[in-house]
Amino acid sequence: MLRGMSVASSYASLTRLAKGGLLTPHLSSGLRDLIGESLSVIGGRPREALTSNVPGKSYCVLRHGAVMTRPINTGLFDPAFAASRLHDLTPMGLAAMQEADRKRLLYTAAMSYCAAADLATRGDQKTPGTFFEIFVGHLVASAFNCEPRQRLPVDILGFKTELPTDYVFDLGDDKSKIHLPIKTSTRERVIQVWAHQRVLDGVYGINRFRGVLTCLAETNMQRKTMSVGETCLPDQWVIYQMYIAQMHRIYYMDTPDRYARLGDRYPYIQVKPFASFFAEAERIATVAPAE
Amino acid sequence: MLRGMSVASSYASLTRLAKGGLLTPHLSSGLRDLIGESLSVIGGRPREALTSNVPGKSYCVLRHGAVMTRPINTGLFDPAFAASRLHDLTPMGLAAMQEADRKRLLYTAAMSYCAAADLATRGDQKTPGTFFEIFVGHLVASAFNCEPRQRLPVDILGFKTELPTDYVFDLGDDKSKIHLPIKTSTRERVIQVWAHQRVLDGVYGINRFRGVLTCLAETNMQRKTMSVGETCLPDQWVIYQMYIAQMHRIYYMDTPDRYARLGDRYPYIQVKPFASFFAEAERIATVAPAE
Repeated sequence: MLRGMSVASSYASLTRLAKGGLLTPHLSSGLRDLIGESLSVIGGRPREALTSNVPGKSYCVLRHGAVMTRPINTGLFDPAFAASRLHDLTPMGLAAMQEADRKRLLYTAAMSYCAAADLATRGDQKTPGTFFEIFVGHLVASAFNCEPRQRLPVDILGFKTELPTDYVFDLGDDKSKIHLPIKTSTRERVIQVWAHQRVLDGVYGINRFRGVLTCLAETNMQRKTMSVGETCLPDQWVIYQMYIAQMHRIYYMDTPDRYARLGDRYPYIQVKPFASFFAEAERIATVAPAE
Repeated sequence: MLRGMSVASSYASLTRLAKGGLLTPHLSSGLRDLIGESLSVIGGRPREALTSNVPGKSYCVLRHGAVMTRPINTGLFDPAFAASRLHDLTPMGLAAMQEADRKRLLYTAAMSYCAAADLATRGDQKTPGTFFEIFVGHLVASAFNCEPRQRLPVDILGFKTELPTDYVFDLGDDKSKIHLPIKTSTRERVIQVWAHQRVLDGVYGINRFRGVLTCLAETNMQRKTMSVGETCLPDQWVIYQMYIAQMHRIYYMDTPDRYARLGDRYPYIQVKPFASFFAEAERIATVAPAE
């Protein structure tokens, strides 16, 4: 067990706060506390380089005895920088930063608790996922100044029920509505995201909700060879976008190049760094007729 | 470790055989061997009754010290009967049995290795899932006398790729095609099944493939209270059937009543015991215009 008591108790108090909503007072400072404490636990650990099978990217792991973190992108991971800029983890602070700094800050902050939890509890998938969901959800809710819901009413010709959803934002009558699934990685489960978008399109009208999937990374580590690759299925995403529903944006903290290139050909899936969101949030919130 | 060497080695040889296809010679006898050996490992174990929150159904677990099997439906589980009728685990043998016997034989055979694996390796989800997939896949492939595929070619206006799928059967030009997902239980992941059906509808044409989902059960055990319930989300299934795609049949070894009742109201999802398949396989294989 490496995770200090302060990280564990900060995680517990963050999830308690988040139950009150993503715009709950003190959620920002709760996130900053947890990220800061995680960074101080992992920041000084020695890095062990991985053999990278991802062109143009280098990865390492942090170790605590036999326990290792998930792969960490060394070009984006900068604990000292992130620790000094935690106060900029707001939509305005981020929008004012240069894009390269914004990417480093967002990636390092997102990775902070994930790496600390990897070292603290072997096989803990759940708390990093919950942290990442609160982290991204809070930033997006703050950017839109809107508290999301996770259920929508259904009332169709006498069939009344409630639909459980990912975070959905209603930005007001003359704004778009947002469907925000958040996942640390997608793998083969990602078809669920397009299927949920299809349900929203069907029940509430095509393009009523803009689908904005946000992910951490698609890294996949081979322990035997201490190497790392990216698991990407771009052809399947093309088929989902053609035949299930249309996602408006797909953001990553560590963007796979094979997905980013999907924007260049039909059906033009827009895959970008999450850093870009803070420059285009207003445009995403704006309803516009097709050109 | 309770699983005898013969169960472990029979499982290994079954999965090796199945790599050659679901109609590989000796796959039938490999399945019968594994089921028979599993039954002899679990058959004599004392049953511990569970508190059932499922109206009209009783459940028990088998125990090996602190390790327990998944919940077992006592009204359908009959190891002595199943062991004496293993030779009837063929489409013809099953079709010739009374429906109540067919249900008992199919349920007990499906549960045999799952329960044996539950007792042998705590938390082993994978080998019961693989066994169940081979068990159901082999029976359906035998009924249709058709070897399924797990990839389909895509070639759309210059976009060429291969689509990985669940088992898909091409029964010939004047027959329907079958899409057969197989799951021990569905939970929230079931939306994937409708999404895959939607992709097949989109790429190959609406109703070109008939979707036939086959499941073991939806039981959910609370260890604290030693009680069992069924996790069912019928309203969500209605929404998936209305807005994603249309599944033709959903079969269960242990059919949840709340799902079976979906057949009575729009959109009339047909949820039935897998025993029914052997009486209606010919009809499912027959292409017919809508009435």
